[in-house]
Amino acid sequence: MKIVIDAMGGDHAPKAIVEGAMMAIETFEQLEITLVGDEEKINPFLTDKTRIDIIHTTTVISSDDEPVRAVRKKKDASLVLMAKEVKEKRADACISAGNTGALMSAGLFQVGRIKGVERPALSPTLPTVDKKGFVLLDVGANVEAKAKHLMQYGIMGSIYAEKVRGVNKPRVGLLNVGTEDGKGTELTKQAFDLLKEAPINFVGNVEARDLLSGQFDVVVTDGFSGNVALKTVEGTAMMMFSMLKKTFMSSLKTKIAALVLKKDLKALKNELDYAEYGGALLFGLKAPVVKAHGSSNPRAIFSAIRQTVTMVEHRVTETIAETMAELHQVEEE
Amino acid sequence: MKIVIDAMGGDHAPKAIVEGAMMAIETFEQLEITLVGDEEKINPFLTDKTRIDIIHTTTVISSDDEPVRAVRKKKDASLVLMAKEVKEKRADACISAGNTGALMSAGLFQVGRIKGVERPALSPTLPTVDKKGFVLLDVGANVEAKAKHLMQYGIMGSIYAEKVRGVNKPRVGLLNVGTEDGKGTELTKQAFDLLKEAPINFVGNVEARDLLSGQFDVVVTDGFSGNVALKTVEGTAMMMFSMLKKTFMSSLKTKIAALVLKKDLKALKNELDYAEYGGALLFGLKAPVVKAHGSSNPRAIFSAIRQTVTMVEHRVTETIAETMAELHQVEEE
Repeated sequence: MKIVIDAMGGDHAPKAIVEGAMMAIETFEQLEITLVGDEEKINPFLTDKTRIDIIHTTTVISSDDEPVRAVRKKKDASLVLMAKEVKEKRADACISAGNTGALMSAGLFQVGRIKGVERPALSPTLPTVDKKGFVLLDVGANVEAKAKHLMQYGIMGSIYAEKVRGVNKPRVGLLNVGTEDGKGTELTKQAFDLLKEAPINFVGNVEARDLLSGQFDVVVTDGFSGNVALKTVEGTAMMMFSMLKKTFMSSLKTKIAALVLKKDLKALKNELDYAEYGGALLFGLKAPVVKAHGSSNPRAIFSAIRQTVTMVEHRVTETIAETMAELHQVEEE
Repeated sequence: MKIVIDAMGGDHAPKAIVEGAMMAIETFEQLEITLVGDEEKINPFLTDKTRIDIIHTTTVISSDDEPVRAVRKKKDASLVLMAKEVKEKRADACISAGNTGALMSAGLFQVGRIKGVERPALSPTLPTVDKKGFVLLDVGANVEAKAKHLMQYGIMGSIYAEKVRGVNKPRVGLLNVGTEDGKGTELTKQAFDLLKEAPINFVGNVEARDLLSGQFDVVVTDGFSGNVALKTVEGTAMMMFSMLKKTFMSSLKTKIAALVLKKDLKALKNELDYAEYGGALLFGLKAPVVKAHGSSNPRAIFSAIRQTVTMVEHRVTETIAETMAELHQVEEE
């Protein structure tokens, strides 16, 4: 199995990327990795070249670049060359911690959509109280969605949760303003009906309050609302940690108590850190395309690689393609 | 000034409602209150009847009742009789901690919309890091919205933030998937253009990550996304407190540290409790209609009454009506 990685994407590139890749090479014996990026900058961190090769380029797409234009103009950027390796079947999957929009664009136009999938979905795994996490899709690959797209998100998320996260009959929910049937917008009402008929374990509407409760393995929504939910979780957690810190620093007494708790609070922070759950998937493409968090450290890159290895091993993409083909046949009959 | 209150709405009714009302009567010398509900159940908590009268009814709309039908069928329910007092101008404003949908329905059909306001908006004040809070509208009065509605939400929220929360030139933001101009859906793109032209201090797009950052006094969005944002804040805070609690209970050492921090953590929890910021407003109606949180204690009811008193004193409804009339005139010219 070969995975190609954009060595220049993310806040701590190429160091974190290369170090994460080397952890993965040590762990997975069958894995080969291609790193795409500036050889001179990559080499200092590459202490061992076993099963690792490099495609050299000095062009990089930055986080400020306008995604679609950057992918079109910077044809030799590390992210674009990475996608090309998958397109031309020299690699089974790709990973980047760089510009999300550019990765979506390169994924869509180079790797290409699975036949029958109308829209790809960007899907991180978010933390839950029981630490098992759930897959949220879409968080912004498409800000507008049709009911059929949400139904397809449900199928793709369900296959992933089963194959990669090892969940038996994943519980798929629809993000909505209330739990009762018939709630919400025209979109959610129509999606509800389609999801009920889909070959998945659809458990109904989910209120945003219960997203992190562990009651759902997969939650589907349009990219706008999913983006709002994802970033609200981040923002609220950030605010609470900042307020906790202030509380802890407020007196000598609280400072001492905080010192005692330091290790446990750090562990709590890690549990909430969704980088620990791997990268965000771009579902619906002909090969796994994984977006690692921009602030990824080597550990997060390693998680993303492990996740990608599992996707390839368990034939997630192929299963999605087969399921879509079957559905299409049923529709035609 | 007279405020009418549904004494039977909310988890702790009528006790919390009556006690909150009595706190308000002590504080505001000019205030008269009408309580609507079961006299027998109200009286035990009514230790003083100064400036308080009761409209007796035993019919109640519960939180499980289907809102629109309940308001139509249960014509003598406490919530419906409450709205009638405002409609028939015997009261200046009303407050209920009961069924939100029923309150919206009674507000819309009995109190009625301000001329020119196309859609009312439900708007809580959410906490921010700097403890000043911000007004989010809409969180679900209308799950679908047009660009013009968002523009009107911006105007109503801005007037409220200025008059009631004492903010000079309130910063109004538009919830979106990115901060750059031109981001988002057709709806947000059109709303952006309208908000730019509106007589408010529009500061552009807001990412959900920054909602609680204190950079905005008013944030507008459609009812679906607003509902998702609001409930995600609640759910994330709930999860974090539950994980913190577990961390604290994990060993003797952490239990002792937690004991030292108890008071400070309680204070932190209160800061995050948006009941402290008063009730959610139903903007766009001919009089202030306030939704207190279902789990309101006497303190939260008191906050909601104080907020309503300020709205009446500062003529918020009248100012919204005048502004809408002016806008309408400009549009016609």
